Amino acid sequence: GRALGELGGSTQGAQRLLAYSDALLSIIATVMILPVAHTKIHPDQELNESVQQLLATKIAVYLMTFLIVTVAWAAHVRLFQVIELIDDVLALLNLACMMLITFLPYTFSLMASFPDVPFGIFMFSSCAVIIGFVQAVIVMYGFQHPYLLNHQIQVSENQAFYKYHILKIIVRGPTLSFVAAIFSFFFIPMSYVFLGLIIFFPHIRHLTKWFTSKTTGREEELPLESFTFYLNEPLSKERVEAFTDGVYAIVATLLILDICEDNVPDAKVVREKYHGHLISALGEYGPNFLAYFGSFVTVGLLWFVHHSLFLHVTKTTQLMGLLNNLSLAFIGGLPLAYQLTSKFAKKSHNEIEAIQVSCVTIFFGSIFQFGIWTAALFYERETLHPYARYGGKEHAFMFAKLALYPCVSLLAFFLTCVLSELSATIFHLMQIIIPFAFLVLRILVRVALVTIKHIMSLSRPREDVLEEEEACLSPPETLS
Amino acid sequence: GRALGELGGSTQGAQRLLAYSDALLSIIATVMILPVAHTKIHPDQELNESVQQLLATKIAVYLMTFLIVTVAWAAHVRLFQVIELIDDVLALLNLACMMLITFLPYTFSLMASFPDVPFGIFMFSSCAVIIGFVQAVIVMYGFQHPYLLNHQIQVSENQAFYKYHILKIIVRGPTLSFVAAIFSFFFIPMSYVFLGLIIFFPHIRHLTKWFTSKTTGREEELPLESFTFYLNEPLSKERVEAFTDGVYAIVATLLILDICEDNVPDAKVVREKYHGHLISALGEYGPNFLAYFGSFVTVGLLWFVHHSLFLHVTKTTQLMGLLNNLSLAFIGGLPLAYQLTSKFAKKSHNEIEAIQVSCVTIFFGSIFQFGIWTAALFYERETLHPYARYGGKEHAFMFAKLALYPCVSLLAFFLTCVLSELSATIFHLMQIIIPFAFLVLRILVRVALVTIKHIMSLSRPREDVLEEEEACLSPPETLS
Repeated sequence: GRALGELGGSTQGAQRLLAYSDALLSIIATVMILPVAHTKIHPDQELNESVQQLLATKIAVYLMTFLIVTVAWAAHVRLFQVIELIDDVLALLNLACMMLITFLPYTFSLMASFPDVPFGIFMFSSCAVIIGFVQAVIVMYGFQHPYLLNHQIQVSENQAFYKYHILKIIVRGPTLSFVAAIFSFFFIPMSYVFLGLIIFFPHIRHLTKWFTSKTTGREEELPLESFTFYLNEPLSKERVEAFTDGVYAIVATLLILDICEDNVPDAKVVREKYHGHLISALGEYGPNFLAYFGSFVTVGLLWFVHHSLFLHVTKTTQLMGLLNNLSLAFIGGLPLAYQLTSKFAKKSHNEIEAIQVSCVTIFFGSIFQFGIWTAALFYERETLHPYARYGGKEHAFMFAKLALYPCVSLLAFFLTCVLSELSATIFHLMQIIIPFAFLVLRILVRVALVTIKHIMSLSRPREDVLEEEEACLSPPETLS
Repeated sequence: GRALGELGGSTQGAQRLLAYSDALLSIIATVMILPVAHTKIHPDQELNESVQQLLATKIAVYLMTFLIVTVAWAAHVRLFQVIELIDDVLALLNLACMMLITFLPYTFSLMASFPDVPFGIFMFSSCAVIIGFVQAVIVMYGFQHPYLLNHQIQVSENQAFYKYHILKIIVRGPTLSFVAAIFSFFFIPMSYVFLGLIIFFPHIRHLTKWFTSKTTGREEELPLESFTFYLNEPLSKERVEAFTDGVYAIVATLLILDICEDNVPDAKVVREKYHGHLISALGEYGPNFLAYFGSFVTVGLLWFVHHSLFLHVTKTTQLMGLLNNLSLAFIGGLPLAYQLTSKFAKKSHNEIEAIQVSCVTIFFGSIFQFGIWTAALFYERETLHPYARYGGKEHAFMFAKLALYPCVSLLAFFLTCVLSELSATIFHLMQIIIPFAFLVLRILVRVALVTIKHIMSLSRPREDVLEEEEACLSPPETLS
């Protein structure tokens, strides 16, 4: 798109800045699972109360970080829907903003370790207020240099309206956190309510709006020009994809980091215990490698399902965004599930529990993906490609793809309840076998299609079919 | 581009698959700095021989991983320059390939811990051979379904030539590592030579070709059709950017992870030592926060410089790719530099050494960026936007931007030699001040330009200038 120009060539397309911001935000959201996953638990130790409490605290930090970062990300998406070009000043301001956002996890760690000291919340809210201030400066700067703005806003006569609308969205979070900080000095539980409100306020507001419009039958008044980002308040599809890719990539990579840190045997141990036989020393770690490959396959395929789904999504509504973020929060928990199953791989009281944690994580990760699809079908004319809608030729296959993981994880969960000897090994082997299920699904659909085609056009020459295929390859411009 | 179509809608644009692969590869390359950075060193301990050896081993693993992953990444770029569309089978094969690549760091850890056991190299080469096999299957599959191929190859009569050419590129690495595995049973040093060859072979080959063509004045014969990816063998600019963004993002994020793990005080310590005053307990960590912000600013600005540079790059040659990878390898070392400076923040024998390590890391990271620019200027007609070429209006400013970090880090290094009391605190404050240097540079250039404009066109009305600015905003289609 628009890339260079202006005095000194400082005006630029924002694409790469946004890609970098998405990568940063998705990694910062997900990487906080590491302190949870690395909580020291002895294999023989029961998951007793103190360990559970420690884990619960760390999981709370992870979840708060993840959800707050998604809120910051959503605000960032909104901001750069309005400002479409950047210059050096905006790039530097955006980096300052990113620096403050990456500092947020630390404030959560403080909150979790010192739940009855207001300082953690105070620090969080200071960061939030500064972030809000920097973003407000970005907006003001953008409206002072109108050539940086979205074209529709640039030509609009209501520029002031857009300016205050976007400022309102950006200042919302900081204001709520400021109130939370004030409450933290009197009554801390109230300030946690406000922190929760930061995360769910946009969705609650959206829900109440939807309900009032359904019950009173009256749509809220919009400004004269219908600017696209009001319509169901859609997120930018590209940025949802970029954020999602970042999360999946870091989750897949954290797994090997654990393998490299934990499963390289000590040279001395190998010499003394295994008489220098490295391979037999590594044999000990067999279950860990299996757990690694099983987890990687699961992460990879869940990404694959997401990829297939978003191939047919043409627009992302706010509800789809929320479901996607919830799905990602669970996917981000997979390194913890990996740690548990690989740590308790030997028969122990905790092995079944570890498998159950994995199943629950995978189930919720995938059922929320299914939820995205359901939410998309609700407004299918706006959100889905015709192929994926009811009656489209990809509809059934899409359904099968999305239903596979919820079904399999439920099945595995019930097996752990019924069979007392289901081991982690069998569980990981199941994980590794699943891609073949995808290929079998594909082949079954193919065979069915070919059979139908064969029956319907026995006399048609082959070349026509090829031509038709090629014609299908050209993009459906009206939709993508 | 081309997104949906064919029987069952399985053919897809490869864009998102590539973005995900880039994210995975960049993170896996960089994340291996974590075991290095987390090597336990006591603050009072001299950096003695055993610690230095341990660090050296881990750094070797990091560097080998980084460079091998960049080779795998380059092969992957080549592969998907030939295959431009994917279907579900290719997506799954690619994920299998990624799984094997993310396993490579573990084989390096084994090699580094057991340098005289051939098993590590054997495992590495097995992985490499399987990766090569999977990629070869991808190529065969692509040429069996020609509608997936690059259009130029699709219409070419020399398809078989392209097929064998790309197969040759892909099989090169695995073959070399297979030879290395065989040598590991007889004479291990030789197999390390072959491992090094995997990394540098393409560049050595390129260099010798360049020399022979310069000395004999004869270009190597190319096939009749001049397919673009032969011309200086350029990498895909988008993928270089995506890989780079991934590395910078993970480096910036690893910093806060350290802060969260190391700098949350223990509740008991706060109660007993600081009488419950959290703020005074955190005061202890002041230097760490300063180190964090200093390091983040450095990473952010080095990204900013890279972003500014690539805004003016129109094509990436292989040499530029090599220099970029070398720069990234040093940038990836920044978390280690951060750990050292924050650990030795109190006056100790090692403080100056830690600052020097940081300076050296930053210097090499930025001087290789400068190298990219120099290499680009060498073929400026093909590789640079006119604004950035010699005499272009951005040339001087670009030079200043790229020269800033090498100069500042050199200056800081010399200061550590001259002044004995240069503390880490001053060093980090220097890091934080630098963005203002960028703004000052920008303002100086602005003032100079405005002054010149003012002198040259005193009588010209203001509106014309605005119009000209707007005209500059439209993209120079011929170049971008």
